[in-house]
Amino acid sequence: MAEIITVEHPEDPRLGDYTSLTDVELRRRREPAEGLFIAEGEKVVRRALAAGYRMRSMLLTPKWVEVMRDLIEAADAPVYQVDPALAEAVTGYHVHRGALASMQRKPLPDAAAVLAGAQRVAVMESVNDHTNIGAIFRSAAALGMDAVLLSPDCADPLYRRSVKVSMGAVFSVPYARLDPWPASLETLRQAGFQVLALTPSAQAEPIDRVAPHRMPRAALLLGAEGDGLSHRALAAADRLVRIPMAHDVDSLNVGAAAAVAFYAVAHGRPGE
Amino acid sequence: MAEIITVEHPEDPRLGDYTSLTDVELRRRREPAEGLFIAEGEKVVRRALAAGYRMRSMLLTPKWVEVMRDLIEAADAPVYQVDPALAEAVTGYHVHRGALASMQRKPLPDAAAVLAGAQRVAVMESVNDHTNIGAIFRSAAALGMDAVLLSPDCADPLYRRSVKVSMGAVFSVPYARLDPWPASLETLRQAGFQVLALTPSAQAEPIDRVAPHRMPRAALLLGAEGDGLSHRALAAADRLVRIPMAHDVDSLNVGAAAAVAFYAVAHGRPGE
Repeated sequence: MAEIITVEHPEDPRLGDYTSLTDVELRRRREPAEGLFIAEGEKVVRRALAAGYRMRSMLLTPKWVEVMRDLIEAADAPVYQVDPALAEAVTGYHVHRGALASMQRKPLPDAAAVLAGAQRVAVMESVNDHTNIGAIFRSAAALGMDAVLLSPDCADPLYRRSVKVSMGAVFSVPYARLDPWPASLETLRQAGFQVLALTPSAQAEPIDRVAPHRMPRAALLLGAEGDGLSHRALAAADRLVRIPMAHDVDSLNVGAAAAVAFYAVAHGRPGE
Repeated sequence: MAEIITVEHPEDPRLGDYTSLTDVELRRRREPAEGLFIAEGEKVVRRALAAGYRMRSMLLTPKWVEVMRDLIEAADAPVYQVDPALAEAVTGYHVHRGALASMQRKPLPDAAAVLAGAQRVAVMESVNDHTNIGAIFRSAAALGMDAVLLSPDCADPLYRRSVKVSMGAVFSVPYARLDPWPASLETLRQAGFQVLALTPSAQAEPIDRVAPHRMPRAALLLGAEGDGLSHRALAAADRLVRIPMAHDVDSLNVGAAAAVAFYAVAHGRPGE
C-alpha cells in the first residue's frame, strides 16, 4: 500500500512533476525529456494503469482519497494529499477532477513492430493540435483501427489534453513515430499496406468507390486541419482518396474527416 | 453606403447589441428575444449576408475598416468604429477577429416547409452544447444533409459560438424546431421519412447493414453527448441503428458519430 503524504507547501519538491501544468510550452518540452506524462481524472488514471503504465506518484484532494482507495492500496508510489487551493497553486488551474497522476512513459515501439499483425492503420502528418490528436485516437479506437503512426512533428499523444480528449484511447491504440518523413512511409509498403492519402482534391477518387474495406492492409494518411497533407506526403501515397462532399461548403474538420474515413476503411457493406 | 461612426464610450447605447458577449446565460436569453445574433469574423459576416440575413449594425476596429470596405459600401446599417480596448470593454473579451456584426434573425420556417423536397435529414434531441451544434451543422453541410430539425431544448444554432464552429453552415442548411417533442416526429413519417435512431445499444442494427443510403427518405435521430437519446425518442423511431464499434472502448463523440452517420446515410457504394 502506498503512503499518503499530506503536503502543505506549493514549493515542496515532491510535487515537481505537477508544476505549471497550464504552461503548454514548458510542459511539452519537460514531459518527454523527463519521461513522464500526466493522467487527469479517475477514469483516465485507471486506464493508464490498466494499460501497464507505471505510476510515479499521485496528487489528490482529500475527497478523492476515498474514491481512489483501491488504487492507493495497490500502488507502490507516493500519494500526495493536498487541499484544492494548494493543487491550484502548484498546477496553475482549478483541478476540477481532483485526481492527478504522474505516470512513467514507456519506450515507443518502432513502426515495424506496431505494424506486425495490423490491417488498418492511421498515419498522421503534422497534426500538432492536442485536441485533434486526442479526438482522432478516440475515433481510431472506437472504429477498430489497429495502430497509429505519427510524423515527427505531430503533437504528443500523451500530453494531458490529448489523453483527456481521447478518453484514454492513446493508451490502448499502439502508436509509433515515422522518421525520416515521408521517406519511411516505405515501411508501410514493405509490410504490405496500400497507402491512401485523404485529401479534398478533385483529382482524388471518392473513398466509397475505392472500397478500402476490401483491401487486406490499408493505411490512411491524414493531414492537419487547414493545410492538409504536404506535397511530399501526397506524392508518397499509392492513391489519393476523398470523402464525397457537397459543393460550395468548407471541408469537414479533421476529427470528423478522420472518423468518416476510419469508418469507410473498417466497415464493408453486406453483399460486397 | 453605410455611415462610419467612431464611438468612444463603452456605455454608448448604440453599442447595445454587443454588450457582455461572454455572458452566455445573458446572451442566450437576450438574442432570440431581441431577434438578433452576432456574426464574428470577416468570413462569417460575409456568409451571413450572402444567406440573406439583414445587418443591424457592424462593430469594427480600425484595421478592419479597409478589409470590409465593400461590405460597408453595400450596407445600409450603421458601422461603428472603435479601438480594440473599447471593443474589449463592451464585449468582455479581446476581439481577435476585429469584426463583429449584429444580424437580424429571420422567422424560423416550420418543419413541414423544411422537409418539402428533402431526402436526408438530421434530427437532434437535447444537443445543448453550442460547439457540438456547430460541428454537426458543419458536417451536415459538407456531407450533403438537406435539413436539420431540433428538439425544443437544443442549443441555438445562431449563438456566436455555434455559428463560428459551423463555419457559417448554420446559414446554409435549412432548420426548424420540432415541438411538441417527440410527438411531432410524426411530421417526418407523414412526409415519407424513415426515422432511424442512432444509439450504441446492442439491440440496434449496424448502420452499414441497414443501408440507409438506399432509402428514398431517411431521417437520422441523434442524441446528446453522454446521455444519448431519451427512451421516448427511441420509442418514436422506426428503427434503431448503430455504428459498428470495437469492443471495450468508449463510444465516438457526438460530432464524430454524426459525421459517420451522415456519410452512411448520404453515400452508397457502387454496385449496390
